[in-house]
Amino acid sequence: MSANFETKLSRYAELLVHTGVNLPAGGKLLINAPLDAAPLVQLISRAAYQAGAVHVKVNYSDPQLSLALFEDGSDEAVAFLPDWVALEAERMVEDGYARLAIAGEDPGLLSGVDPQRVALRSKLQAQAMKAVSEAVGGFAVNWCVAAMSTPAWATRVYPDLSAEAAVARLWDDIFSVTRADQSDPVAAWGTHLSELERLCGLLTSKQYAAIHLRSELGTDLTVGLAEGHIWQGGAETARNGIRGVPNLPTDEVFTAPHRDRVDGWAVSSKPLSVRGQLIEGIRVRFEGGRAVEVTAQQGEETLRTLIETDEGAAHLGELALVKASAPVAQTGTLFLHTLFDENAASHIALGRCYPTNVQHGENPEALLAAGGNDSLIHVDWMIGTPGTDVDGVTADGAREPLMRGGEWVI
Amino acid sequence: MSANFETKLSRYAELLVHTGVNLPAGGKLLINAPLDAAPLVQLISRAAYQAGAVHVKVNYSDPQLSLALFEDGSDEAVAFLPDWVALEAERMVEDGYARLAIAGEDPGLLSGVDPQRVALRSKLQAQAMKAVSEAVGGFAVNWCVAAMSTPAWATRVYPDLSAEAAVARLWDDIFSVTRADQSDPVAAWGTHLSELERLCGLLTSKQYAAIHLRSELGTDLTVGLAEGHIWQGGAETARNGIRGVPNLPTDEVFTAPHRDRVDGWAVSSKPLSVRGQLIEGIRVRFEGGRAVEVTAQQGEETLRTLIETDEGAAHLGELALVKASAPVAQTGTLFLHTLFDENAASHIALGRCYPTNVQHGENPEALLAAGGNDSLIHVDWMIGTPGTDVDGVTADGAREPLMRGGEWVI
Ligand SMILES: [Zn+2]
Ligand SMILES: [Zn+2]
Ligand SMILES: [Zn+2]
Ligand SMILES: [Zn+2]
Repeated sequence: MSANFETKLSRYAELLVHTGVNLPAGGKLLINAPLDAAPLVQLISRAAYQAGAVHVKVNYSDPQLSLALFEDGSDEAVAFLPDWVALEAERMVEDGYARLAIAGEDPGLLSGVDPQRVALRSKLQAQAMKAVSEAVGGFAVNWCVAAMSTPAWATRVYPDLSAEAAVARLWDDIFSVTRADQSDPVAAWGTHLSELERLCGLLTSKQYAAIHLRSELGTDLTVGLAEGHIWQGGAETARNGIRGVPNLPTDEVFTAPHRDRVDGWAVSSKPLSVRGQLIEGIRVRFEGGRAVEVTAQQGEETLRTLIETDEGAAHLGELALVKASAPVAQTGTLFLHTLFDENAASHIALGRCYPTNVQHGENPEALLAAGGNDSLIHVDWMIGTPGTDVDGVTADGAREPLMRGGEWVI
Repeated sequence: MSANFETKLSRYAELLVHTGVNLPAGGKLLINAPLDAAPLVQLISRAAYQAGAVHVKVNYSDPQLSLALFEDGSDEAVAFLPDWVALEAERMVEDGYARLAIAGEDPGLLSGVDPQRVALRSKLQAQAMKAVSEAVGGFAVNWCVAAMSTPAWATRVYPDLSAEAAVARLWDDIFSVTRADQSDPVAAWGTHLSELERLCGLLTSKQYAAIHLRSELGTDLTVGLAEGHIWQGGAETARNGIRGVPNLPTDEVFTAPHRDRVDGWAVSSKPLSVRGQLIEGIRVRFEGGRAVEVTAQQGEETLRTLIETDEGAAHLGELALVKASAPVAQTGTLFLHTLFDENAASHIALGRCYPTNVQHGENPEALLAAGGNDSLIHVDWMIGTPGTDVDGVTADGAREPLMRGGEWVI
């Protein structure tokens, strides 16, 4: 890679530390990253120590070890989770570790593996990590999810390029959509975050009863919103008072649906990559908040297994609006990764809502009473298109246009 | 690398699982390995799952992160160790995890770093991990330390070769001294372990009061042995009843000195690589078991810091005898790594003894009463040469030749 690449990678590392988790002097940082991320993780660690971090803990994961487990492990091994894994994670939340996750996994890693084995282990892991997921989802600590280009991922995104060219191309995409290729990425993020903040303030003040989405693919969906819902997007202030950016890139504003007030058809506009498999051509009909008809052109079994995880998995926990001209959409690339693809299109998520999307949502009873959804899963899937129209529906049934042809009109 | 290499690497992985930790069906395995070891770790994991392992936990370490901490971390960061690290390690010992460590670190990694920072952190880590070290040293679980060839290490061993050639050459050495290049490595180990068992049985039955070593370099050292000492070497039966091989390669037989009965001069025959630094030309005079004169041609400060760790660090915890014709010595290579170099020469270790080298040594009071040594450290250094003569000294002062010119005569 060129010297130019090294500069961008360093800026990216600085961006993750300063804008992403916004690590204070004396702060603690947990980095979860795949092996391939080592050069980036090393730069992040140096940036964190230079910012005065007192501890940087890195958990490197090796996707080949997951594959070995699913391919060669006994049923007992697939079901085995020692309790100290969750205990350590809980202790790190209590100790105030900011969390930085570097994503770059092969979207098709587990495609040749028995989906029942993967589903079983995913569910057991979600159960074991429920307390941690809730604390993190409720911003007990600040966290950031960002990505890196890896051969396994890049060659799926760019199957016609050599591995080396694909990795370089995907890095260019990542630097571009995260603004790491700009001369002052941190300042560029300031401007961008202000616009998202304006939209969130406006939408939250409206307190629409529902949002109605229609697309040329057949989506015709009314998403009732939770009582006292809050629109969020861009930066987030954690309960420890630190303001960071949970996703890089991020172009969405999102809120909590009412779990029993979603009706109509949702049709996917992009493939969904989940549990190492690709689900394409999803059509789901909701009635009274529940997914009652579920089909997919590919990966339907995985989708059904997902929705059957628990009752909440058949209800929505997120509605997010993204303009069609957002940077990720403009790349024209299907990233096969939620972190990117969700920023190319408006989307919904099956499963758990974010407590921060509802007033007093940190209280589980208040969250439930407001219509917030609970589940072991949270899976985003994209329904927005360049032809999507979105209306806000007020409590007395009046409609106000929010998006036309995929662009904001407010 | 050639297909031949892949075959040897697979055999090596099988050897570590079956002969090294001797993992039973339903067993649990902890692997500590550097990032570079990923291809080997993946083969080991598959071999373990195929052998019926219920859990394989891998902790990948990244040497560059240690360097980042020492170079960019605050004093607070260098001294910071969260207690859940030791708690997790203790839980894994309680849960009966076999332990496999893959060594391949750069022997000079920390040579440019302030040795006081390294010493402080090493000591804090040793204190935090004391319970684990004791349990592991006492074979509460079975464990194995083996090595892999890495560019950082290989290029120090073979500075005149290209990185690629050096890595290949060091792999050849590793395969050769661990017998992984033989058609049936497990059977070859069977023969070798029988010979070590014969020597251990014979020496233990003699119950020498002391061992006297003389070398052409100036070693003239009488090492009094602990009361009820046991010679060990090769395979080891852990308290869980599983018989494995703690070190691959291994050619030594070793026992516990009496901490107060060591007198004379010990002169190093090979450089000692410790804490990322090289210590060369060591001359230490012992009196009443204690190191009273300490000099080194290089790294003397690190050596002194080491010996000043605690009182036990100035006394011996191991005496090991290795024939000059052992496979590691025959390679003629200075590996700059104790795991290998200690199998090229007779050696002594400063610090903690192995409780298994003394009868009833699992009882700390019995161990102390017998003359066993305790310390936060255990550091081997080589004094044996092709010209070394070794005698056993009986309780009434009679001498019996054990080695002449570096070779066994019993
Ligand atoms: Zn979203
Ligand atoms: Zn989401
Ligand atoms: Zn030894
Ligand atoms: Zn030793």
